[in-house]
Amino acid sequence: MRMYDIIMKKRNGGELTEEEIQFFVNGFTRGVIPDYQAAALMMAIYFEKMTGEETYLLTMAMAHSGDVLDLSGIQGVKVDKHSTGGVGDKTSLALIPMVAACGIPVAKMSGRGLGHTGGTIDKLESFSGFTTELTEEEFVRNVNRIGIAIMGQTADLAPADKKLYALRDVTATVDNLSLIASSIMSKKLAAGADAIVLDVKTGSGAFMKSKEDAFLLAREMVEIGRRAGKHTIAVISDMDQPLGYAVGNALEVREAIETLKGNGPEDFVELCLTLGSQMLIAGGRVKASSHQEAQTQARNLLLDAIDSGKALKKLAEFVDAQGGDSRAVFDTSLLPKASLIKEVKAPKSGRITHIKCDEIGMCSLILGGGRETKESAVDLSVGLVLKRKAGDEIKVGETLAVLHANDPDKAEAASSRFLKAYTIEEEWPGEKAGQIRPAAPGIIHGIL
Amino acid sequence: MRMYDIIMKKRNGGELTEEEIQFFVNGFTRGVIPDYQAAALMMAIYFEKMTGEETYLLTMAMAHSGDVLDLSGIQGVKVDKHSTGGVGDKTSLALIPMVAACGIPVAKMSGRGLGHTGGTIDKLESFSGFTTELTEEEFVRNVNRIGIAIMGQTADLAPADKKLYALRDVTATVDNLSLIASSIMSKKLAAGADAIVLDVKTGSGAFMKSKEDAFLLAREMVEIGRRAGKHTIAVISDMDQPLGYAVGNALEVREAIETLKGNGPEDFVELCLTLGSQMLIAGGRVKASSHQEAQTQARNLLLDAIDSGKALKKLAEFVDAQGGDSRAVFDTSLLPKASLIKEVKAPKSGRITHIKCDEIGMCSLILGGGRETKESAVDLSVGLVLKRKAGDEIKVGETLAVLHANDPDKAEAASSRFLKAYTIEEEWPGEKAGQIRPAAPGIIHGIL
Repeated sequence: MRMYDIIMKKRNGGELTEEEIQFFVNGFTRGVIPDYQAAALMMAIYFEKMTGEETYLLTMAMAHSGDVLDLSGIQGVKVDKHSTGGVGDKTSLALIPMVAACGIPVAKMSGRGLGHTGGTIDKLESFSGFTTELTEEEFVRNVNRIGIAIMGQTADLAPADKKLYALRDVTATVDNLSLIASSIMSKKLAAGADAIVLDVKTGSGAFMKSKEDAFLLAREMVEIGRRAGKHTIAVISDMDQPLGYAVGNALEVREAIETLKGNGPEDFVELCLTLGSQMLIAGGRVKASSHQEAQTQARNLLLDAIDSGKALKKLAEFVDAQGGDSRAVFDTSLLPKASLIKEVKAPKSGRITHIKCDEIGMCSLILGGGRETKESAVDLSVGLVLKRKAGDEIKVGETLAVLHANDPDKAEAASSRFLKAYTIEEEWPGEKAGQIRPAAPGIIHGIL
Repeated sequence: MRMYDIIMKKRNGGELTEEEIQFFVNGFTRGVIPDYQAAALMMAIYFEKMTGEETYLLTMAMAHSGDVLDLSGIQGVKVDKHSTGGVGDKTSLALIPMVAACGIPVAKMSGRGLGHTGGTIDKLESFSGFTTELTEEEFVRNVNRIGIAIMGQTADLAPADKKLYALRDVTATVDNLSLIASSIMSKKLAAGADAIVLDVKTGSGAFMKSKEDAFLLAREMVEIGRRAGKHTIAVISDMDQPLGYAVGNALEVREAIETLKGNGPEDFVELCLTLGSQMLIAGGRVKASSHQEAQTQARNLLLDAIDSGKALKKLAEFVDAQGGDSRAVFDTSLLPKASLIKEVKAPKSGRITHIKCDEIGMCSLILGGGRETKESAVDLSVGLVLKRKAGDEIKVGETLAVLHANDPDKAEAASSRFLKAYTIEEEWPGEKAGQIRPAAPGIIHGIL
């Protein structure tokens, strides 16, 4: 078998076989197949697409290119959750304690963030002393004891994907739905969970800008997961504006804690309840005669975990078990705090008709809350808290957002960038024609 | 400017600018742009094509990526000739003395062959002592004195093309007409001639299997040449069966010599006259009121160069000037000779309806007449001489071809391969339906 023939076959619109895909993935991982041949194949796939079967086979080959975690030492159905990422996405911080409080074990390998905000691990480090450096024994013991453990990615999970993604990133071959789906799913399958709940985001702050693409990507991933024998659900959620109000590591932790106290933003609570109920159903936590009824039961369990304080307590247990100062769970003033507060004021009165969501993420990055390169340090204290979101009315001079900064120049730069991200219209264009003003979109676009 | 954006632009169907093409060619030649990005761009070009303007710009950038020969020291209009290659293609050997005898200077840089037969330099080395290791001064002096000089490629001509072709060859991105055209033309333009006559071959023994593709390639090359301000003509000629009868280095030299003596095979003579008259016209050697008349005058000059013996004498002068034993021009028994002669007999009676031309080339390669890799040595003496070609009648047991070999096993292997290349049909399939049997195609398919 020759890589040349594999490239040629795909270039000519052929369907690759299992042997051909494995030959490529193995050879590429071992460095026997050079980058330039892999790049040519990726571009040919970009143009000629992959079938569902090819996408599944590529995913499986990449999932098995390194270690595959064995979570059999953990009791119960292990449900993993994955988000395609967005601005202000603190979902795991609230969701994990909620589902764990309902008896679903969460055993996650997590990475650090790259881009506008930190990753889940960065955010958790807002708890002084918190560490993800657990041994595999500690990891399993913690999950069995308190229901949650998160460790940094130490194992060599899906190295083929890591290498291939880095190549696609510099050869303009990232945006193919099958390749994106197989990249995400290969890591999820290698991480060893029994069921997978995917949060696919769409909108101006998401990788998938259009709803249509988000649904297609979700469908591809669900198909892969189900072919691989895993219970797989995808929720398509809105990312046309930041999730909740807080953007920035410690600020998001605080918002997640408020949510566990029952004071969460409406959109964020709804997303947590939707994803959480899918996780409880996937984990076999509820039994009902209809799916509708199961969802109602699951939502009630989750709401009860909040109302009873069990979820908040679970977060504290978890932080404690991983060396963090859990007092901050009950007293958020102990979280990292920025030295400087700057309010961004509305330059005119009107209604906020659109927010460039990724630009809000950039404001947080400018303030120091994200990583520009893998080596950058993250300032956990900085970020911003929105006071108004899309659809809201505002008067000139009222506060649009509060910036938390440690550097006045950065605060100034973030402030002027922020203003450009908000569109405030005195009069909605359709108003004269007697049209009804459309409401801001709901947080959930669909479930597959 | 970033290579990433250039790949993305082409991938999305955009037209690259002069700056972008130069950025790519310069960066790639200097090794600053890695192979994997170049491979991705080549595959994107394969799918999205290039416009005539892009193809021209790529050609010019590659032509100027290294040395560009300055032939201004040579008097007269320098006309270069290029063949896309085929089986039994000894055209240069006869054509160059013919046109030089008519007063057109030929100053060629030539390469060695790779594949089924040797290149022009290999063939010329059939003259004992012949060398192409000339200094630039000797080169120019010889052209000015006797009208011909051929030297090995010492200058660094179009290194971008060399590097890019090697990459395309292993990434399944060779067969794009614009890329093929720019590859050929970049070398021709760097070689410094004033006018270029292209011999684009089509058929089972050519790179371009279909006539349609051959015309498209010819048109692309002619367009590039004319945009570059060079008088450029393309002749589309047949390679559905070997050119003439001889295939193999010394055997082809002998056939070329016979042609200069007036005993050439009809198809080969016609090709030489067609290409030669275009070269004389391009070189301003004939002046006539119509193109038709110019062609007639040019053909008559060429025929006269043969009839008068001037062309044969010119070959001898040329061989002599480059250290070769020119006695072989007048006594071909002095050329390298194989030790073994094996006749291939017809297995049945009928008419030869088809010849797999590239398979005939493979027979010569098996006998040792070509290079399998760049390092292989070429056996100048071996090859084969056809006795029957397409359209000919043959009786069982009559000779189809004579193999010249130095190894009985290789002769045996070549013989059985040869038999598979010939289709002999007792009755032509269309005969019963009363159709007229089509004649074998003429050698010239068109001139652009």
